[in-house]
Amino acid sequence: MWATVVSLQLLVLFVIAFDDLQDAIEHREQLLRKELDMMLGSDIVLSDSEQKANEIIMKLKHHELDGGLENPGQFNVSKHFFSYKDEIKKSPLFHILRQMPKGALLHTHDTGVLSPDYNLKLTYMDNLYVCFEENDIRFHFSLDTPKDTCETRWQLMNEARFSSGDVEKFDADIRSHFSLVIDNPHEVYTDINAVWKRFQYFFIATHGLLTYKPIWEQYFYDSLKAVREDNIMYLEVRSVLPELYDLYGNKYDAIATAQSYKDVLDRFMNDYPDFYGAKLIYAPLRLVDRATIRGKLEIAKEIKRKFPDFFAGFDIVGQEDLGAPSKTFLPEFVEYSNEVDYFFHAGETNWNGMSTDENLFDAILLDTRRIGHAFALIKHPHLLNEVVRKDIGLEVNVVSNSVLKLVEDVRNHPLAAFLAQNLPVVLGSDDNGVWESDPLTHDFYVAFLGVSSRHADLRVLKKLALNSLYYSAYKNKDKIVHEFEIRWTRFIHDTIKYYR
Amino acid sequence: MWATVVSLQLLVLFVIAFDDLQDAIEHREQLLRKELDMMLGSDIVLSDSEQKANEIIMKLKHHELDGGLENPGQFNVSKHFFSYKDEIKKSPLFHILRQMPKGALLHTHDTGVLSPDYNLKLTYMDNLYVCFEENDIRFHFSLDTPKDTCETRWQLMNEARFSSGDVEKFDADIRSHFSLVIDNPHEVYTDINAVWKRFQYFFIATHGLLTYKPIWEQYFYDSLKAVREDNIMYLEVRSVLPELYDLYGNKYDAIATAQSYKDVLDRFMNDYPDFYGAKLIYAPLRLVDRATIRGKLEIAKEIKRKFPDFFAGFDIVGQEDLGAPSKTFLPEFVEYSNEVDYFFHAGETNWNGMSTDENLFDAILLDTRRIGHAFALIKHPHLLNEVVRKDIGLEVNVVSNSVLKLVEDVRNHPLAAFLAQNLPVVLGSDDNGVWESDPLTHDFYVAFLGVSSRHADLRVLKKLALNSLYYSAYKNKDKIVHEFEIRWTRFIHDTIKYYR
Repeated sequence: MWATVVSLQLLVLFVIAFDDLQDAIEHREQLLRKELDMMLGSDIVLSDSEQKANEIIMKLKHHELDGGLENPGQFNVSKHFFSYKDEIKKSPLFHILRQMPKGALLHTHDTGVLSPDYNLKLTYMDNLYVCFEENDIRFHFSLDTPKDTCETRWQLMNEARFSSGDVEKFDADIRSHFSLVIDNPHEVYTDINAVWKRFQYFFIATHGLLTYKPIWEQYFYDSLKAVREDNIMYLEVRSVLPELYDLYGNKYDAIATAQSYKDVLDRFMNDYPDFYGAKLIYAPLRLVDRATIRGKLEIAKEIKRKFPDFFAGFDIVGQEDLGAPSKTFLPEFVEYSNEVDYFFHAGETNWNGMSTDENLFDAILLDTRRIGHAFALIKHPHLLNEVVRKDIGLEVNVVSNSVLKLVEDVRNHPLAAFLAQNLPVVLGSDDNGVWESDPLTHDFYVAFLGVSSRHADLRVLKKLALNSLYYSAYKNKDKIVHEFEIRWTRFIHDTIKYYR
Repeated sequence: MWATVVSLQLLVLFVIAFDDLQDAIEHREQLLRKELDMMLGSDIVLSDSEQKANEIIMKLKHHELDGGLENPGQFNVSKHFFSYKDEIKKSPLFHILRQMPKGALLHTHDTGVLSPDYNLKLTYMDNLYVCFEENDIRFHFSLDTPKDTCETRWQLMNEARFSSGDVEKFDADIRSHFSLVIDNPHEVYTDINAVWKRFQYFFIATHGLLTYKPIWEQYFYDSLKAVREDNIMYLEVRSVLPELYDLYGNKYDAIATAQSYKDVLDRFMNDYPDFYGAKLIYAPLRLVDRATIRGKLEIAKEIKRKFPDFFAGFDIVGQEDLGAPSKTFLPEFVEYSNEVDYFFHAGETNWNGMSTDENLFDAILLDTRRIGHAFALIKHPHLLNEVVRKDIGLEVNVVSNSVLKLVEDVRNHPLAAFLAQNLPVVLGSDDNGVWESDPLTHDFYVAFLGVSSRHADLRVLKKLALNSLYYSAYKNKDKIVHEFEIRWTRFIHDTIKYYR
């Protein structure tokens, strides 16, 4: 009798526990599902072939991730970018992402696309003079010794090189001015200003080199080529539109520089008709006064008038933390807001609530079409809502943010949260050549492997590519998306063919 | 005539531009206001005195912040905690935060509260034997040579010390086992496992030392004292409740260990009746099998039965990334969910979407009262909603997360976003003694200066303190909040008196 009571009680207990457990397991599944359904790309339905390719890609992703969890010291993507940027090129996942149609590149600066080796090669050209200063190297093409001031003296580059005694060392030194990559970034780049200071050397060294009109045009042509080869179909490029020069003392203003770009683009489109073109975001330096910005906005209007299809809009550039917050120019930006579209940099900072952080408010207030970086946006819940309401694209540059010291371990990049809540993200690469990465593949690799959830799959990749078309200034969206789909199908086919 | 038309047009343009600008400025103010109104603490209305104290505090905060923006290399809080933890003690802001009533300390582990110097002093006690192994130092109190295995041999500690030839060096070596603090953390703690490995040395070295019953009780008494001196009025402490021992071969099980704590607490409350008490969260190790967890849950029930006012709830501890995700124990946790309250660690990881990350799902599913760490929660928008809906407190340990390598620059800690959107945050300190910081002041300083917005003021500080009372397991909330308000008023008075 007692035995029966006891076993009945046990049975009841067991049944209740089991029911609760089943409930709990189902509820857990629901929670996971709800979370995944909020993720960027969750609205994409994969075809049968895409599912096959997805299996291949996810197997590779999980293999790399799970090895990292076991051995975090070996997990590349959480370390400094310089330590793994070349090694990952051996990864099959990297190869697939390189082949993948990535849509548009929407955040890049014109003189930062090509590699230091490319720039070094330029220094072998005739008529190039060099001036070695304490920290800087400056270049100038000229038929005679340049008149520009030089702390030491102008020498013909080829003479300087071959009288140096050690051409290899000489070239390595020159090359170091074209790259931020060093062996010991943790020791040298101790804070954000230290790395930006070195970045200034880059701008000074490349200025006289790249603003020589023939090189300027070749550089842009070769940039378009590099972008196309990284399986990008369309480009929006930011430029300060510097004054160009030639051997004969001619100077070319911003309008003429824009004209140069337009001519090169036309030539490139003629040579590579499968490319979908490029547009210009005129982006002069921010560390100036209001009158200067007003002048630049007038130039923007003029460029728009002259090249309505080539001009995308306006932005200002330079390290945000150093001052000249956007609100300084609010009167000018308001005044011209009906004349030009804005594509403002904002929130490339981790100073929470300081004037530079508030550039996000100005950008959104001024109905910016997209936000460059938006790194600090995660700390602004109301602005996050506004970004969604106004459908403002976020140009996230994850590799740039790690190289330029905003975040150490990319797993802490706010992109993880942006992707999780399906914010309008596109990936950019900022100045990929300066850290010797591909125009977009490295950024996709780091974002996919290091930042996105282990569950994020081919759908997040496809959505990021589609977002880049949707948030671009390219007019005929149907046409470009249609062509993207064709290329995407070919990519899926090839992935299955080569990797299964 | 033309002149009139032209000037009228100019006037119209000017007026329109001015109106737009005024609109823009007002709209900008609104955006900023809305954002600030969402912040943690925004519901608090400051009295006149509080406003005066707030001015003092904000002046100090802005001074430290603005110096940092100008000279980021000099900004302490963005660097490694070890490099500034002592220096900031000179800061008047730190002094004020030390004096500030901070409410309750809800996330701390019992053997990590006191400093390495405290532990070192314990090694001068009689009857202490030491065993030096390859990486570890182990201790045991005994009347004769301990029987426990030792890779080398057990020696009387005082003999070992004074035969070492260099007591200072000997003690420094011993002390290093009680602390994670080193001069070159960037070089030694290269990844999360490296720092956790050293953390294991701490646990091994302190085990035999602190589980000696007389020390165990003294350590808890002195911990309560340190907590009270840091202007904390109430404590919830996690403990694995290890087996204690004494000189006479007696062993004390988890229940007896809990009894020890209860007795010490009673004695402490008698000595310091202004303290508001402590509760126990029984938190055994997670790296065990299901049967073991079931056994621990039975013990938890028993402790709850014996000490209903002292027992708060149950948790499991240990580096989350190493395995044993919470879902392993889902059947057991579901079964006991009506018997004990849960206070689960979850999301102390930056592996997005991996099994360890999903501990957050289990914790929330199981109606955890609070979440320990919740570092990864920012990557889970649906869980963020659930946390708010279920009113689950988030025990954020910002210093711990930086020391244990989850985040390098605390400005990237998700706490910034949690504060911005007024999530139910409380600050904890995890194992403050192991990184030689105060029970809570360092965490408040880092959170206030390094993480919260420049605009976050006294209200965020007060709300964090109030949250710690609200999300505690302390029953009589009215009583403790009333006493808090009295102390707060005194603190405000003193701040105005000494700092204006």
